[in-house]
Amino acid sequence: MIRALTLAQQAAAVGETPIGGIIVRGDVVITSAHNLTESLHDATAHAEMLALRAASKILGTRYLTDCDLYVTLEPCPMCAQAISFSRIRRLIFGAYDPKGGGVEHGPRIYTQPTCHHRPEIIGGVMEHECGQILKDFFAKMR
Amino acid sequence: MIRALTLAQQAAAVGETPIGGIIVRGDVVITSAHNLTESLHDATAHAEMLALRAASKILGTRYLTDCDLYVTLEPCPMCAQAISFSRIRRLIFGAYDPKGGGVEHGPRIYTQPTCHHRPEIIGGVMEHECGQILKDFFAKMR
Repeated sequence: MIRALTLAQQAAAVGETPIGGIIVRGDVVITSAHNLTESLHDATAHAEMLALRAASKILGTRYLTDCDLYVTLEPCPMCAQAISFSRIRRLIFGAYDPKGGGVEHGPRIYTQPTCHHRPEIIGGVMEHECGQILKDFFAKMR
Repeated sequence: MIRALTLAQQAAAVGETPIGGIIVRGDVVITSAHNLTESLHDATAHAEMLALRAASKILGTRYLTDCDLYVTLEPCPMCAQAISFSRIRRLIFGAYDPKGGGVEHGPRIYTQPTCHHRPEIIGGVMEHECGQILKDFFAKMR
């Protein structure tokens, strides 16, 4: 999660919402990404989506069954569903997101009958640090 | 929708799940896509996601506020949320999808407090044709 947080800091430095994510398989980091919605003019360019797509490309498969995803913020419904489609084994996230989250808030994607793969979920890892960087970013924006 | 259905037929011809989508602005087709999850080894490569990303690239903005999206199947939760993020004005879809849909089924993304833009929705357009191509495809797969 420290590595994901470093990516979030890099995102903030280029004016992107500071959210970072990495995908690991065992001890190996397969891919890392931070939000790029502004730079890419792409509303879907969340850290998780970019990391999933890159990992699938690197591993040559759309099923990341033995991979874990670390991300600094609770995934939104789009990313939560993408994580399910990609069959990520374990999802570890930092801060909870009551306004936009889709795992423990809103649609609670993994509890739905339309969800056919539910990763193991660990939330609140380095919650304060992961949340603070977002608070600082938005405070500066105002 | 006829155009989206033609794309779905093209998808089936290359072994992809036959779902097609187009994005229009006024009378102009901005982009069109069909599912490419198999070819791209990418679980997120649904017709809608590819069309949204392409349209954002073409128009140079992540907000497709005056665009409408036609797709042959009710969007899944991932795509439904992406459509919301992209601020699509109107979503027109063909067949309903009780097993995987996220608009009228499952998480019903646009009814959630975590959803901050709800497009106008028209479902069931050419419902039979759009559903039949999927039924034929999966029958042939078995």
